[in-house]
Amino acid sequence: MDLDFKKMDGLITAVIQDNASGRVLMVGFMNEEAFQKTVETGFATFYSRSRNKLWLKGESSGHKLVVKDIATDCDQDALLVKVEALGPGVCHNGYESCFYRSFKDGEWIETEKQTYDPNAVYGGNK
Amino acid sequence: MDLDFKKMDGLITAVIQDNASGRVLMVGFMNEEAFQKTVETGFATFYSRSRNKLWLKGESSGHKLVVKDIATDCDQDALLVKVEALGPGVCHNGYESCFYRSFKDGEWIETEKQTYDPNAVYGGNK
Repeated sequence: MDLDFKKMDGLITAVIQDNASGRVLMVGFMNEEAFQKTVETGFATFYSRSRNKLWLKGESSGHKLVVKDIATDCDQDALLVKVEALGPGVCHNGYESCFYRSFKDGEWIETEKQTYDPNAVYGGNK
Repeated sequence: MDLDFKKMDGLITAVIQDNASGRVLMVGFMNEEAFQKTVETGFATFYSRSRNKLWLKGESSGHKLVVKDIATDCDQDALLVKVEALGPGVCHNGYESCFYRSFKDGEWIETEKQTYDPNAVYGGNK
């Protein structure tokens, strides 16, 4: 059974979930090469749509994602990757998860505090 | 703060997570109208890329998704929707979650049993 990279110009959605807590940490995209790298190295590797290249998550911050399980969905066009997240947070804005805002009464409200200072980790280069 | 529907031809990724168990149940796509319907009705509503129209999840099966929380990510191009899933399963193939296969030693292995008979629910019309 092959993954279906055709629906989205060579990419599939990759949902990253904390293996211990079950928290969804981020959503990224993988092309076939990124998927292969993820399997081979054991570290989640994405395809960056903005930079048009492979992106080893944590390559600059050190906050890598150690892969514990990779599941695919019924259509084989999405992945659920369970990970152990190294470091204090996955989000480049300084939060544990990229999903740090919820919709309440028509507005997006921040629902948690930063877990690290992104300027100290990334400098001006997020 | 507005959601960013521009990156993917008017769509954003919507990850559906069981509010009680934390299990990721499916991944779908929403356009702006589907997002508005989801907010207004309290039931997860997607944009079907194969049928090119709005799709109220559960409209034929009755397995609707009652929205408990909607979060967005740092880039505002993905949603994490926590739900109470009505019915025995979200996947049209008869499983609780669409992510019922994991990658082990180079193969996709079914990791769980069906929770209902999809033919009894959908007939020949999945």
